[in-house]
Amino acid sequence: MKKMELNKELLKKDAPIGVFDSGVGGLTVVREIIRQIPNEKIIYFGDTARVPYGSKSRDTVTRFSEQIVRFLRTFQVKTIVVACNTASAYALEALEQESDIPIIGVVRPGARTAAEVTRNGRIGVIATEATIGSQIYSEYIKKLKQNVTIYGKACPLLVPLVEEGLLEDPVTEEIARRYLSELIDIDIDTLILGCTHYPLVRSTLGRIMGPEVTLVNPAYETARELKELLAGLDLLNSQTPALGSNRYQFYVSDMAEKFLRFANSIIKYGILSARAINIEAY
Amino acid sequence: MKKMELNKELLKKDAPIGVFDSGVGGLTVVREIIRQIPNEKIIYFGDTARVPYGSKSRDTVTRFSEQIVRFLRTFQVKTIVVACNTASAYALEALEQESDIPIIGVVRPGARTAAEVTRNGRIGVIATEATIGSQIYSEYIKKLKQNVTIYGKACPLLVPLVEEGLLEDPVTEEIARRYLSELIDIDIDTLILGCTHYPLVRSTLGRIMGPEVTLVNPAYETARELKELLAGLDLLNSQTPALGSNRYQFYVSDMAEKFLRFANSIIKYGILSARAINIEAY
Repeated sequence: MKKMELNKELLKKDAPIGVFDSGVGGLTVVREIIRQIPNEKIIYFGDTARVPYGSKSRDTVTRFSEQIVRFLRTFQVKTIVVACNTASAYALEALEQESDIPIIGVVRPGARTAAEVTRNGRIGVIATEATIGSQIYSEYIKKLKQNVTIYGKACPLLVPLVEEGLLEDPVTEEIARRYLSELIDIDIDTLILGCTHYPLVRSTLGRIMGPEVTLVNPAYETARELKELLAGLDLLNSQTPALGSNRYQFYVSDMAEKFLRFANSIIKYGILSARAINIEAY
Repeated sequence: MKKMELNKELLKKDAPIGVFDSGVGGLTVVREIIRQIPNEKIIYFGDTARVPYGSKSRDTVTRFSEQIVRFLRTFQVKTIVVACNTASAYALEALEQESDIPIIGVVRPGARTAAEVTRNGRIGVIATEATIGSQIYSEYIKKLKQNVTIYGKACPLLVPLVEEGLLEDPVTEEIARRYLSELIDIDIDTLILGCTHYPLVRSTLGRIMGPEVTLVNPAYETARELKELLAGLDLLNSQTPALGSNRYQFYVSDMAEKFLRFANSIIKYGILSARAINIEAY
């Protein structure tokens, strides 16, 4: 299906970028955007009332994502980043069809990098059940490169372990070892961290996989692709916005204390507040 | 605040009982209801699209619960069981105010039993962050018994571990030991399993606490209280409904495969199907 044409009227350099995720994980993408294009304003939405997405169906994740896009567009954003692998896997195509501003997900940038860096053509993907079940990484990688084999492994317990802050903990290591053992056995040389929480246990995953395996962090690659996209459309913000509450705005669907605690541990910038809104009204 | 009066017109012996939970955990309550009052018809709703509730706020959990009550009432249920500790802690009072049919939760029955069985007056409660934060068990127990001390401990990782099926697993035991160690240190003699998932790891919890500690299962106590309530109102179904698809009906907000898999592992009756509905429309 053909995408809608971009509406140039809506694309303003000094407009903010909308970023969303099922909860806190997408903040690892925000962190990379802040590092790579620090002039940009960001409106973040975390769907903390309905998190997690990774065990939900395509229809549900798509409906939720469409509501969030409607919410983010009330801020006249110039582009939207789907900073959630599950939403990128299930909903990105539907969102793109209906959108007259650019929308990018985290899956394609991660897939592209993995296709570039693999030497033996054996790529592992760890992600939620939904992302693995969708086979989306495999689909994208195979469009870019022939003679590759992609091994997907769902790791449902890693998200709650990370959210409990057990980043360097023997239990997390034991669970990760169980999940990764079959990927080690089949000799992958590249591992995609296909869930936005996983970069937070990157060192544990790297230790288990060993130095021969390249870890691909889609959060980093997505920020890079976003920068290229904005540069190509001449939409990079040329002025540094004044530091202050409007530069980075955080919205959530449920005002869990946990969001602020977690957000402040990921982004050292100092997230002073997050506003709760009723996302079901969008 | 005064509750609404019961509307006798709505209370029919052969009407079904509505039961709801944030997801699958409430099925442990359904299992007890089936055991103790097998003549009753049950309409179950699991909010699988928005699970879990235990890390969400009072407002959000109350709004979700009100939607579900509106959905269940479309079946002309004679009573509603809030088979979720978090929803019982946060939303039960609001639901009761607005209801002209009886609504019972799982917290009060569990609290009553704990108050009865403790000998040294030191009671532990393990539950979600929301339930512990609400201090609802403490509040109820102290109304029933003086000179008791209640120690609450949130165990957020137990739900995902149970949902991954790690019921008898060294990782679950290690995590449970960490959570329970402080309750052992302070010499409780009674432990309330304040989350509907926990009875599924009852043997692990019992092994850690030792034989001196009585485990209280609110699911069991709730089914007992439900039976007494219906008997008191002369509402017990006197006829055995024919076995068939209408006796037990399961609805979910997201048609995750996981629901059926998990449901069939808890209720040996054979849950052949569950229907997905859009709960946000209620």
